[in-house]
Amino acid sequence: MKLSKKTLDQRSEHLYDVIIVGGGMGGLSAAIYLQRYRLSCLVIEKGRGRSFWMQDTRNYLGLPPTTPGRTILQQGQDYLQDLQGDYLPGFVEDVRDEGETFAVKVKVGKKDSTYPVLRSKYLIAASGIIDKLPQLPDMQNVYDYAGHNLHVCLICDGYEIADKQCGLFPSSEAAINTAFVLNWFTPYITVFTMGLFEVGDEMRQKLKDHGYPLIEAPIKRFMGHHHEMTGVELEDSSTISLDVGLIAMGSHYHSEYLRGLDLEWKGNNLITDSATCRTSHPRLFAVGDLKDGINQVSIAVADGTLAATAIWREIRRQSPPRRWQENLSG
Amino acid sequence: MKLSKKTLDQRSEHLYDVIIVGGGMGGLSAAIYLQRYRLSCLVIEKGRGRSFWMQDTRNYLGLPPTTPGRTILQQGQDYLQDLQGDYLPGFVEDVRDEGETFAVKVKVGKKDSTYPVLRSKYLIAASGIIDKLPQLPDMQNVYDYAGHNLHVCLICDGYEIADKQCGLFPSSEAAINTAFVLNWFTPYITVFTMGLFEVGDEMRQKLKDHGYPLIEAPIKRFMGHHHEMTGVELEDSSTISLDVGLIAMGSHYHSEYLRGLDLEWKGNNLITDSATCRTSHPRLFAVGDLKDGINQVSIAVADGTLAATAIWREIRRQSPPRRWQENLSG
Repeated sequence: MKLSKKTLDQRSEHLYDVIIVGGGMGGLSAAIYLQRYRLSCLVIEKGRGRSFWMQDTRNYLGLPPTTPGRTILQQGQDYLQDLQGDYLPGFVEDVRDEGETFAVKVKVGKKDSTYPVLRSKYLIAASGIIDKLPQLPDMQNVYDYAGHNLHVCLICDGYEIADKQCGLFPSSEAAINTAFVLNWFTPYITVFTMGLFEVGDEMRQKLKDHGYPLIEAPIKRFMGHHHEMTGVELEDSSTISLDVGLIAMGSHYHSEYLRGLDLEWKGNNLITDSATCRTSHPRLFAVGDLKDGINQVSIAVADGTLAATAIWREIRRQSPPRRWQENLSG
Repeated sequence: MKLSKKTLDQRSEHLYDVIIVGGGMGGLSAAIYLQRYRLSCLVIEKGRGRSFWMQDTRNYLGLPPTTPGRTILQQGQDYLQDLQGDYLPGFVEDVRDEGETFAVKVKVGKKDSTYPVLRSKYLIAASGIIDKLPQLPDMQNVYDYAGHNLHVCLICDGYEIADKQCGLFPSSEAAINTAFVLNWFTPYITVFTMGLFEVGDEMRQKLKDHGYPLIEAPIKRFMGHHHEMTGVELEDSSTISLDVGLIAMGSHYHSEYLRGLDLEWKGNNLITDSATCRTSHPRLFAVGDLKDGINQVSIAVADGTLAATAIWREIRRQSPPRRWQENLSG
């Protein structure tokens, strides 16, 4: 059921088999599998994650490429409810390992918040990442285009960028190298640093050799209408026309709640076993963008399959077998 | 485009980036990614693979659980066509490694067949498996129920079996052990050997200890109507009522065309690198049920993502960079 402040009391003594932190693609996939394995699970979702902002899901087999991420999320939430899984809108503040169980502290409600602690045998970290965006005085101007034709993922949307005039918005000199992957799709690349960082001579020369203009002035605003970005206006009011944009500013990783646990990381990504999505902690699994690997819907959904199946196998093997009593004599 | 005997000539000199053997979930996912990476690919599909027979896709996030496999396959084929990918109904008879290319010999057409040879730089083996079914005098009687409530996959359909009277149809004594996983979902298990193999004393005792009847007589037919199996009639005309069934007779692996290549196998499954789905052959990838791992739609779809992305990265890195000519001086 969908839990809230009012109904949460019903679960205060319940020990879930699995609590899943994050109700994106990986978390919902895991939850559906777990409920279908007849285990009890709870998904805790803070809302407005990366897939919520996806306007089109173009690479996921079975759905029209115009399907927004939120449509998939809603289908998953509804199905989870049909399968009697629990879903709680809330923000996981902390996870404590109690030996046999995890204690998960959740902030529920933005006003008059409560801080229930819920417990499970296993934990799946499915809280993902969120892309960093250019910081302009009017952020609404950025939100108007981000996820539409101001893209954040080259694998997802390179096809839509093909042979178009593309603005690249990196957050560091290293991120400018995205241009030399982006140019598989289009050579018409203009790099905007917004004055955020210095560009060394070597990179300047490399861009020049490729014919990619480098614009270092701060940006006043994105131009366009109806979520279709058409260019950039700089602070001096000069403008540059663009067909599309690609933001390469890195990501924020939603993993603060894991800081008290001893886990193996590769940078900001959790290292997991490829066959099970198990982290270095035997009862903690990670799926989707938070784990090391390609950030794609299909991968997160498969991760959910792997983690749920591994947990089911472990619980099943530790459980007594069910016998058909009426056939037993003596 | 959808190729046929008539239009195949147009491709006789074409070197594809990738030929994909099998247009199931993994093959179509790979093809969609490859076309969106602006590579050229051809899917060769013999028809009526495992996912074609799936009546409900209950564990795949984003689609109603009542979605038949063939609906997903059709969506994938249509989308591939929109993306200008090639699709050829045909049966791959042989693959020869020519060093830089693969030569793929296809049988096209069941009558007056032609045997074109098509070429690619990379190959993706996505030809999967098909479940072996009980062999009854009237196979239509089996087809009427298989994939409906006569299941073949415990992960997919265990939930639907829960607490029901279930017939288990194994093809060997070892396969009887499926009962001791199936009993996670239901303890009301009757094992039918159909007289196909001997059952040793130890297994007999184990079944007895669990209270699971063992029926060794040949089966005359499945009873039921409208694709709903309701029990089994034995050769002596006695009947046993059942709510559902689970077939555990193993699978046929569609991999004959690979026999001329030096590849690493784990039994009938191809061994692949978990991050890329690459086999022991550097230009040959395997996705879905043919590779080692869990046989699930979500996994096959993610495999397609991994293989396509690995191939794209390799081709991209070997290609000259695209420069923006008009910005280049001197």
